[in-house]
Amino acid sequence: MNKIVRYRDLIEKALSGIILDRKPDRLYQPISYTLKLGGKRLRPILTLMACELFGGNINEAINPALGLEIFHNFTLLHDDIMDEAPLRRGHVTVWQKWDPNVAILSGDTMFALAYKYVSLVKSKNLPEILDTLTQTAIEVCEGQQYDMDFEIRDDVMISEYLEMIRLKTAVLLGASVKIGALIANANNSNTRLIYDFGVNAGIAFQLKDDWLDAFGNPEKFGKNIGGDIRANKKTYLYLKCLEKADNSDRQILVKLFHDKSKSAKKVDDVLKLYAKYCIRQETIDEMEYFFGKSLDLLEQINAPRNLKNEIIEFAEWLYKRDH
Amino acid sequence: MNKIVRYRDLIEKALSGIILDRKPDRLYQPISYTLKLGGKRLRPILTLMACELFGGNINEAINPALGLEIFHNFTLLHDDIMDEAPLRRGHVTVWQKWDPNVAILSGDTMFALAYKYVSLVKSKNLPEILDTLTQTAIEVCEGQQYDMDFEIRDDVMISEYLEMIRLKTAVLLGASVKIGALIANANNSNTRLIYDFGVNAGIAFQLKDDWLDAFGNPEKFGKNIGGDIRANKKTYLYLKCLEKADNSDRQILVKLFHDKSKSAKKVDDVLKLYAKYCIRQETIDEMEYFFGKSLDLLEQINAPRNLKNEIIEFAEWLYKRDH
Repeated sequence: MNKIVRYRDLIEKALSGIILDRKPDRLYQPISYTLKLGGKRLRPILTLMACELFGGNINEAINPALGLEIFHNFTLLHDDIMDEAPLRRGHVTVWQKWDPNVAILSGDTMFALAYKYVSLVKSKNLPEILDTLTQTAIEVCEGQQYDMDFEIRDDVMISEYLEMIRLKTAVLLGASVKIGALIANANNSNTRLIYDFGVNAGIAFQLKDDWLDAFGNPEKFGKNIGGDIRANKKTYLYLKCLEKADNSDRQILVKLFHDKSKSAKKVDDVLKLYAKYCIRQETIDEMEYFFGKSLDLLEQINAPRNLKNEIIEFAEWLYKRDH
Repeated sequence: MNKIVRYRDLIEKALSGIILDRKPDRLYQPISYTLKLGGKRLRPILTLMACELFGGNINEAINPALGLEIFHNFTLLHDDIMDEAPLRRGHVTVWQKWDPNVAILSGDTMFALAYKYVSLVKSKNLPEILDTLTQTAIEVCEGQQYDMDFEIRDDVMISEYLEMIRLKTAVLLGASVKIGALIANANNSNTRLIYDFGVNAGIAFQLKDDWLDAFGNPEKFGKNIGGDIRANKKTYLYLKCLEKADNSDRQILVKLFHDKSKSAKKVDDVLKLYAKYCIRQETIDEMEYFFGKSLDLLEQINAPRNLKNEIIEFAEWLYKRDH
């Protein structure tokens, strides 16, 4: 994992040099603030690793990697307005610290900056690289809209939920590795395989997020356990429990998720139903399916064993995290 | 002007086929609604004309032209949220008809769709075409932020105002003709000249908008005369009057523009000050300067006389409109 730390440092350093003193202040200060909030830098690390996997020079992939991180942060900025989220990574969100208009416009600018940085690469594949960003951006917006639609729908199916998280979260991980592969001139078959690896791993990571919210280590997760339950968020856990519960329990669960209360008792009541219907294990089974599929796809890729192992190690570290 | 009508029909037809029945509804219906609201379709027409001017095939320029129109409409969608505008082209704005979240996300999707359509061109200049879109998008955001900053500033200089309208409005007209030129493989000198033509004409058109708000034909403009004055908008007219007025009048003008009233008397009082300081003619002089400069630049372009004349005719028709 030394390489991951080195890649992240590389990205942090490059990101911190991007904005500096551009004007107008109220446009660029929120961008600078957002990019400095940190995070795992998962997407740009994946771009660099995929580029290296196919024999590319990671120095050529740095700018597109930054572009993907800027794109991801743009989506967070706009999502936080839509979700009225007060905090992001422990800091006040931009729409709260400045105002919603500033967050809209700084986000728009970050979207354009994402294209700027993804374009800063010498590659005959530039058109396909940019098409990947565009197609991904459209799908991420579709995923976010489905997510908002689900808030007011009572008939969401598990298949629809999985498609929503594929669009909202997973395709950007797919795009991150695909763009790394395209920079390294990987062949079509390998490019497709690494994209599908990223998408399937992304679905597994999101299911793990859902799972941690209910079953994470309380000492590390602290008081945040049950945040999705308090917010009545229809995660995989909720939908699976709804599917398995008998009529009476289903009515109780639906009622709990229409309750505006954020009490510990509500969380307890829901967790008891999850326990009764083995939702802990059901969710593990589902995420194992997607994570296993992602590793199978990675195995099919024609690339050096040691580099494939590094990606597996990174993916397993993300997958096995307990907070 | 028959050609303009033909080009506009071509664009309307192509635009109406773009969205159709894509899902989710709450993402794509607002986009479809926005693109059907009409407008002059100025930007895509300019792209087609510039492409033709340099011997290109306008069929190859249609998709990028659509992309520029989609981009323009994306900026309007987000501007309307920020300005809390109830109407756009006589119809309810998206954030009012749906809600602000829908307008944010549909706008984001339109931004991505703009890239999608601008990319749909077979051209060795594709990287420069996309760079033009990206640089323009960043500048348009900067212009919008300056515009919002000016609302709460009392020390805006005319030079700053001109820079703001260059960024917010004019560079997109420059980009529209530049992209047409790039599709037609115009040489560097011609590409630069047509871009500068578009930017200077764009500044003139915006000054004309400012002018019409105060001095437009009241029969055609109807009750909308003085909308900028009622909204305390610091246009060129206001800033020029501030510059020329004596101390006492300057204080009166500043006070009028801090007044929340939208009364006819307020409009009258401001118009009297504008009359006293010849703001009508001052603004004409300024816009003549930019419009004249744009025509000088066009003259320097090496291209067929008859096609240059068609662009001049179109620009003059836009410039001389009285409503």
